[in-house]
Parts: sequence; C-alpha cells; structure tokens
Amino acid sequence: MKLSEIAQLIGADFNGDDKEITSMNTLNEASATEISFVANVKYIKEVPSSNAAAIICNSSTLDKIPSSCVALVVDAPYWQMAILSARFAPPLEDTSSPKAIVGEGSSISSKAELANGAIVGKNCNIMPGVYIGSNATIGDNTTLYPNVVIYRDCKVGNSCVIHAGTIVGSDGFGFASDKMGKHKKIYHIGNVVIEDDVEIGSNTSIDRAVFTTTFIKQGARLDNLVHVAHNCEIGEYSVIAGQTGLAGSSKLGRSSIFGAQSGVAGHLEIAPFNTFAARTGVTKTIKESGKVFAGFPFMDHRAWLKIQGKLARLIK
Amino acid sequence: MKLSEIAQLIGADFNGDDKEITSMNTLNEASATEISFVANVKYIKEVPSSNAAAIICNSSTLDKIPSSCVALVVDAPYWQMAILSARFAPPLEDTSSPKAIVGEGSSISSKAELANGAIVGKNCNIMPGVYIGSNATIGDNTTLYPNVVIYRDCKVGNSCVIHAGTIVGSDGFGFASDKMGKHKKIYHIGNVVIEDDVEIGSNTSIDRAVFTTTFIKQGARLDNLVHVAHNCEIGEYSVIAGQTGLAGSSKLGRSSIFGAQSGVAGHLEIAPFNTFAARTGVTKTIKESGKVFAGFPFMDHRAWLKIQGKLARLIK
Amino acid sequence: MKLSEIAQLIGADFNGDDKEITSMNTLNEASATEISFVANVKYIKEVPSSNAAAIICNSSTLDKIPSSCVALVVDAPYWQMAILSARFAPPLEDTSSPKAIVGEGSSISSKAELANGAIVGKNCNIMPGVYIGSNATIGDNTTLYPNVVIYRDCKVGNSCVIHAGTIVGSDGFGFASDKMGKHKKIYHIGNVVIEDDVEIGSNTSIDRAVFTTTFIKQGARLDNLVHVAHNCEIGEYSVIAGQTGLAGSSKLGRSSIFGAQSGVAGHLEIAPFNTFAARTGVTKTIKESGKVFAGFPFMDHRAWLKIQGKLARLIK
Repeated sequence: MKLSEIAQLIGADFNGDDKEITSMNTLNEASATEISFVANVKYIKEVPSSNAAAIICNSSTLDKIPSSCVALVVDAPYWQMAILSARFAPPLEDTSSPKAIVGEGSSISSKAELANGAIVGKNCNIMPGVYIGSNATIGDNTTLYPNVVIYRDCKVGNSCVIHAGTIVGSDGFGFASDKMGKHKKIYHIGNVVIEDDVEIGSNTSIDRAVFTTTFIKQGARLDNLVHVAHNCEIGEYSVIAGQTGLAGSSKLGRSSIFGAQSGVAGHLEIAPFNTFAARTGVTKTIKESGKVFAGFPFMDHRAWLKIQGKLARLIK
Repeated sequence: MKLSEIAQLIGADFNGDDKEITSMNTLNEASATEISFVANVKYIKEVPSSNAAAIICNSSTLDKIPSSCVALVVDAPYWQMAILSARFAPPLEDTSSPKAIVGEGSSISSKAELANGAIVGKNCNIMPGVYIGSNATIGDNTTLYPNVVIYRDCKVGNSCVIHAGTIVGSDGFGFASDKMGKHKKIYHIGNVVIEDDVEIGSNTSIDRAVFTTTFIKQGARLDNLVHVAHNCEIGEYSVIAGQTGLAGSSKLGRSSIFGAQSGVAGHLEIAPFNTFAARTGVTKTIKESGKVFAGFPFMDHRAWLKIQGKLARLIK
Repeated sequence: MKLSEIAQLIGADFNGDDKEITSMNTLNEASATEISFVANVKYIKEVPSSNAAAIICNSSTLDKIPSSCVALVVDAPYWQMAILSARFAPPLEDTSSPKAIVGEGSSISSKAELANGAIVGKNCNIMPGVYIGSNATIGDNTTLYPNVVIYRDCKVGNSCVIHAGTIVGSDGFGFASDKMGKHKKIYHIGNVVIEDDVEIGSNTSIDRAVFTTTFIKQGARLDNLVHVAHNCEIGEYSVIAGQTGLAGSSKLGRSSIFGAQSGVAGHLEIAPFNTFAARTGVTKTIKESGKVFAGFPFMDHRAWLKIQGKLARLIK
C-alpha cells in the first residue's frame, strides 16, 4: 500500500516522496518498509530510535519523530491505526496458494480441513474437525485432537499434543474506542508460535499477536480452558493449570508454575522459576525467582496464610 | 396443544372451555394463546395483570389469577412447567423447512452445516465446522470462524465476527428440582439475538433464553471463554474481558466495561457506563453510572484498594 | 508387554520368571497381570496389600514390596512410569475394529464421525461435527449437540444431553517432571463414565482418568465452561454452575451444589448435600452434610458474611 494512500485513508497530510509500505508493526520492530504508530505516552520514548518508514502520531509527538521517518499526524492515532489494520490483514484463506503439503506417515482425517498453503510434518495425527489455516505449519509427530483450530500463519512444533476444541490464533481482544464508547476492530496480523514438546488441554484459547508473535515455549504444559491473550510469552517447561488467564503482552519466565484459576494482568514480566498457588492474581512485574506466591492482589504465600489466620480470628 | 391435554399431562383439574395453546411464556410476556406459570412468591405480583390464557399455579395463588385466565392448580408448578416445556420445544432441526438460503458473495465451507430453514446474508464467511441451525439468521458481512455453533432460532447481525469454537444458543442452566434433589430439564424455547458490529472471542458460551431472548447489543465486545447465561442482556458497546461470567437474567447497561475473570450474579441490573476491575464479583443491582468497582463482594475501587492496604499492614 | 522388556525400558534389573503384563494400574486396583508404581510416600501404605504383578519403586521402598510381586527398582519411579505409560496407551483409533454400530431410530449427521468400534444406542441425535472415539458407547435417547467430542473408551448413559463444544475424555493434566523442570507425558489409559439423565452445558471439559474412571453420576447437571480434572467423581444429582473447576481426584457426594466460578482442590472428599456459594474455593475434605459454605479459603457461609462486614467497617 502506498504511503500516499495510507495518508488519505486516515486523513493525514502527506507531501513527501511516496513509497510502498509492506506492513504495520510496533515502534521497536518496524523495518524501513513498515508503518508504526504512537498512541500512548508510555511509548513515546521508543519513537526516536524507530526504524519505521512512517509513524502515525498526533501533533504533540511530532517533534520526536526521527528525520528518516514520515510523520502522519492525526487526532486519534489509535483509532486510525485500527482503520489501517484492516488493510494490512491477509485474507481468511490464501485460496491461490498451493494445496496443503502433508509429510510422510501423517494421518489426516477426511473431516479435517487443511487450507491452501498449510504444511503438516511427518507422522502427525490430524483428527476429524481440525482446521489448519493458510501458511500454518505443524511439525513432526504432533497430534491435533478433534475440532482443534489452528488459525492461519500459526506454527506448532514437533511432538506436540493439542486436545480437542482448543483454539490457536484467534484475534486478540484489541480495539480502539472513541469518546462515545464505540469500538473499531484492530486486525491482528501477528501469529502464535508453539515450540516443540508442548501439550495443551481441551477448550483452551490462545490469541495471536497484534503484530509479531504470541509464544508458547518448548516443553510447556497448559491445562483445559486456559486463556492466553495476544502477545504473551509462556516460558520453557512452564505449567499452567486449568482456567488460568493471562492478559495481553505478559511474559512468563522458564518453569513458571501456576495453580488453577490464576490470573496475570497485562504487560507484566515474571522472572523464571516462580510458583503461584491456585487463584493467585498477579498484578505486578516479578523480578525475583524461586518464590511461592498466593492471593489477589498477590503476595508471598506465607504472608497470605498469615492474613487468612488473622481474618479467621477477626470473627471470633 | 389443547388446554385439556395440558391439564391431563400435568395432573390439574380442568372443566372450562377448551382452547389451543400455542406456546409458553413469562407472566408479563404471555399472549392470550399462551400458557404461563407462577412458582416463586416474587412473581405473584405479576399474576393479576397477565394476559396468559392459562397459568400453572398452586392452590395458594389461586385467588390472584385473573378471571380471564384458566388456573391449572398443581402441587409443584415449577416441576410441572418443566414437564410441559418438553412439549413446546421445537425439534432439533426443521427437516421439512426449505433448504438454507445464502446471500450473494457469501463463502460457505463445504465442511460447514446449514440446517434447513437457516438464512445467511451477503458477503459472509462461514468457515469449516460451523453449524447454523434451523430458522437461525446471519446478517451481511459476518464472519463465523471454524467450529462456531449457532443453535436454531438465534440471530446474528451484520458485520459481526465470531471466533472459533464459540457457542451461541445452548440451553440455559435451568431445571426444576424435587425434594430428593432430582432434576427435570426445562426446555429453553427462547433464543439469542446478537446485534450488528459485535465481535466475540473464541470458546465463549452464550445461552439461549428460557422464553424470549438473550441479547448482545450493538457494538459489544466479548473476549475468550466468557459465559453468558440465559436471558442476559449486554448493553451497546460493552466490553467483557476473558473468563468473565454472567449469571441468568442480568442486564448490563450500555458501555459496561468488565475486566477479566469478573462475575455478575443473577437477576441484577447494572446502570450504563460503569467499569469493573478484573475479578470483580457484582452481587447487587447498580443504579449509579460512571463509577469504578472492584472486589468480591464488589465495592468502590478506592475502598477496595484501602482494604488491601489495611490487610497488608495487619500482617506486619 | 513382557516384564523383561519393561525392566529394560525403564532401566531396572530383572532376573525372575518372565511374564506378560497387560496394563498399568494403581496399587489398589492392579490385578495380578498388571504393573503398578509407588512414587509418593503417601501411597507406601498401599504397597504391601497390592496384587500387582510388579511395582516400580525406588530402593527405599523395596522392603515393602510383597513377596508375590516383582520389584523394579529405579531412581525416579514417577518418571519411569510416565515413560512406560506410552507403551500401554491404545492407538488413537482402533482402525481394525468393526465399523460403529448405531441403534434403531438414531439420527447421525453425515458430518459427525464415529470411529471404528464406537456404539450408539437407540433414538439418539448425533449432530454435525460430533466425534465419538473407538470403543466409546452412547446410551439410548441421548443428544450430542454439534462439535461435542467423546474420546475413545468413554461411556455416556441414556437420556443425556451434552451441549455444543463440550469435550469428554481429554487426557488429564498429569506428567512427571525432572530436576531441570522438564516434563514427561503420562498417557491416560482410564476413561470417563457419564451415567443416565446427565445434562452438560457447552464448552465444558471433562478429563479421562489416568487409570480407572472419571465419574459423572446419574442426574448430575454441569453448566458451561466447567473443568473436571482426571479421576474426579461428581455425585448423583449434583449441580455445578458455570466456570467452576475441580482439580484431580476429588470426589463430590450426592447433591453437591456449586455456585459459579467455584473451585475444589485436588484429592478431597466432599460429603453429600452441601451447598457452595459462587466463587467458593474448597481446600479441605468436608465430612459434614447439609451445610452452606463460601469464600476462599472456604468457611461457613455466615462466617464469610461476618468477615465481609468487619472488612467494610475497617475502612470507615
């Protein structure tokens, strides 16, 4: 899409040299052919070092835009970014891609659907009702139980097991909102990458990243009915018990252990090797390792036990 | 079904003029060809003004029944209503209805199933594994991702997006119970109506109304693994984050914002433009607007923060 | 599998008379042709009375092994048991079994899949996208709504209703972990048995037992998005509201009533006829009946109300 078309679409002035923009991305990740945006003061510090070809911003951020970069000034950058995201979203399926490729020894149910451009490795079991989208790849020796859905562009590693009804790659819960509370969908053009030896229970939902990738790293274990929001990372060998939910962009270090019905707020970083009792609600970044937490808001597990004791005595 | 047959089925005396009863409904909504019931003292006040042709009641309510209306007196009105509901439930599919109608420009996967009597608008994408029941309607420009299920009689508006594995129109969690704790299924003959521009995440469940309608209003956003019970209403542009659950018959006003893992008890009314922090448990009707709540039982968000501070000091 | 092969696979010494081992099982349930294991001091007391043909143990348990039984001594019995479980797991489908048998009057969608060896009773409705695995049985008059998955070897009774997207029989969340935090899958060779007259909502997940059976007893009611872990038992006529989760091996007595978003920790026993308010978190075995509980950690419902009152006064 030409920069001049983008400017017109979002209602920004543009007079410079026109150029082809290939995609959208974050300020940090955008390449010299991509467009980015800044809609939150928190990210202004990333503007000067961005390599983006152009940045959608409002007039107050204009002076931070690097000289190598075109500023597209609008009143509501987030809303305009949402409008633009629809134009960079790929089609639901790449109908003109070649038919799906399936490795030797794999069994694909005639009631599964492999979209054009999908790739399945060797010795896989793809059971009835499974859907694998365009450009999605499945490694070797992986089992997808009935009615698993792998959205387009997502990647599942070798020797993974995904139980029935689990959804990988649905759009994250992201949208721009105006002053009247109306919402504009942000098309999620990132993906989900699930590394090798991961097992996921049934009816779990893992959202794709808005840009870049939602990561489930090697050897992780997710239980049933777990919610993983867009742009999360789950560290190697982590264990996430049933009905736990992770809000957007949180990163769990290696061997994070979460009891059932836990929750993690958005944009947090959890150091490796921590354990969380069932129903813990993590509300802040954690820099220490090797601890046990509980409660909501979360605290040291022993402190939580002490509070429960005090509360019990309160009513006597 | 004849009134005399109904009386016989539920074991009530009936000697008046017989008449054809077309359906069951609430006391308030029942028309002059419908039958209703009263099984809870809370609803006795609605009896005198009901237009129902007949009301199933016990002997203590008999004197409240309007003279225009036949009283069918039984010992256990709720249990007998449950028995009767089975007789008014439509078949799973209307096999004799004409084949599904699909609008111009819509793409329907050969692995999707459209029951007889279903209607899909223009330019829709109905992906593999989707099921659309009899008499269900889908508006224009709507996308149903793989394995979405729309039960019979439900309606989805224009420009909606429903992500994979989401279920619209399953029966609500309603049944009569006897003194031994055994249950009798209440067939849910209502539906779900999802208005225009609604987006719903993956693996969410929205139950149909027992009678009338479960409503998701225009522009609302629901995340993954959300539970919406029978007869709820979600106001325009509301935002319901992941793993939140709404119990039966609760009504959320416009622009209600719920953080993740929240809950709302049954039969509440929430005024418009309120915000609820993650894990809030709403236990009472809310008449004010523009507030922020937190905690369980819920309270003003600042009060909740204050309590957390006090608790933290308790253990020092 | 020969005992000598097992010993070699798990790295144990074995010099006795060789014999054929037919399966794995718990210490209590193992028959004289089955192998068991002891990996937790809690279960050492069950060793002397076990009828197992062989027991995988470490050297410290060796002296408890009955003389009728072969001891296979390894450093990490749980890890070795996990490795062995893969060898006793049946194939995903019994392709050489006879085609599925369907009773008179049953309607099976052409978009449902019945694996070889599945059996469906009379007058059932098996809707599109349903999967029924090998050796699974469905009773008479049962309805499986679209995209329900019944894994192999599971049993569903007569007159059951299972709503769309519900998964019965996915593997439990069980694995062995080594000192580096890596996990080894435990193949779940048990099943799920759902007795007669059970109704289950949409997008619920019920895991199969590791050995033996996960039980949902007669007349129980489960709502949407409920998580039932491996080896649980839900008593007759119990009521489990939406988004509740039960951890592994917990047993609920008859007529247990759980409000929404409740949780039960693992390995507990709950006496019959207790009620739990929404969001109760049960952390201990309950031996009394006829009580109402609330809170997390759970307590008597009146005590919980009292604490909430005290907390409210704290901030004044």
